[in-house]
Amino acid sequence: MKKSLGAQTLLYPSPAVAVGSYDTAGKPNVMAAAWVGLCSSRPPAVTVGIREACHTHAGIVEHQAFTLGIVPEHLVAELDYFGLASGAREDKFDVSGLTAVKSELVNAPYVTEFPVIVECTLLKTFRVGIHTQFVGEILDVKADESVLDEEGRPDVDKVQPICFIPDIREYRGLGKRLAKAFSCGREVRRRKQGQDAEATDS
Amino acid sequence: MKKSLGAQTLLYPSPAVAVGSYDTAGKPNVMAAAWVGLCSSRPPAVTVGIREACHTHAGIVEHQAFTLGIVPEHLVAELDYFGLASGAREDKFDVSGLTAVKSELVNAPYVTEFPVIVECTLLKTFRVGIHTQFVGEILDVKADESVLDEEGRPDVDKVQPICFIPDIREYRGLGKRLAKAFSCGREVRRRKQGQDAEATDS
Repeated sequence: MKKSLGAQTLLYPSPAVAVGSYDTAGKPNVMAAAWVGLCSSRPPAVTVGIREACHTHAGIVEHQAFTLGIVPEHLVAELDYFGLASGAREDKFDVSGLTAVKSELVNAPYVTEFPVIVECTLLKTFRVGIHTQFVGEILDVKADESVLDEEGRPDVDKVQPICFIPDIREYRGLGKRLAKAFSCGREVRRRKQGQDAEATDS
Repeated sequence: MKKSLGAQTLLYPSPAVAVGSYDTAGKPNVMAAAWVGLCSSRPPAVTVGIREACHTHAGIVEHQAFTLGIVPEHLVAELDYFGLASGAREDKFDVSGLTAVKSELVNAPYVTEFPVIVECTLLKTFRVGIHTQFVGEILDVKADESVLDEEGRPDVDKVQPICFIPDIREYRGLGKRLAKAFSCGREVRRRKQGQDAEATDS
């Protein structure tokens, strides 16, 4: 018997990332976002939900682009600050000491101290409740050499991305390796076949 | 200098959840999904990206509802199996041994062995690339008493949700507590104020 907890934004885990954009005055801005998710494979695309009241909103509409920064664990306070402050009232780069770099690919800045960057051009926009969904086509992913593995892919244990637990408003690290996807599930079918064979034998 | 890794679906972490729905014949079905994200706070809503070829797609369109199950670590193989198999060809409940229960709130089933369930009614649908985005309004969250903390909220260390790392197709657990959100960032502003005061004094 499950207990009802009411209607609420609950999904474990949600990614906690930094959205970089130029504001309508052309000034680099960055905000924290967790209402974010991959949404399609072809083209690779991501949705980011942002309220119209956020300073970032008008900037993305104007420049039709944004970046996502995968924030490492040791910069969790900076990420949280990006969510607490508004770029309309303070220069978040000046306050945090982090560095805005202009993407060469899209008209948006990224935080160079973040080891992995996702560069997006605005594909479409739609509304859900009080949030605008910005659908970004991922044009490139860029990463620091220092976080790459031997095959040239990001090593998540070096990247150390941040998970967000919405209902208790807590940041978490990434945990231990559980299994290989599109692979470990084969065991479930084999188990059932074994049970069926046993039932037939007995 | 960051290295270009090309356009790809990369976001750390992505949630790995189970989407429950009735198919067009009214049979309970369940699939694994990672192209998922919270998208709005009012109403609480979530997007789930599903290809039209998936058996689940027509079921959600027909019944205008789905559930999300937060899958615990120990059922990672079952989750992966839900992603490998198609409900059009096999009964995933029969093969996995897990149990479909009809939601009392929406016209969709959930897997009762999953400790936390999110019940959604279809709010809107839109297309991004090869995926349909099903936007679900979260009508309720239900959880097993055994995973609740003293305040009656899910304890993520008891829930043990699964993270998905898209580029290397790996499942991960949730890691250690890093900090309190909407809180730890205040330190960044205080640090800057301290630096400014020091600069003025010297």
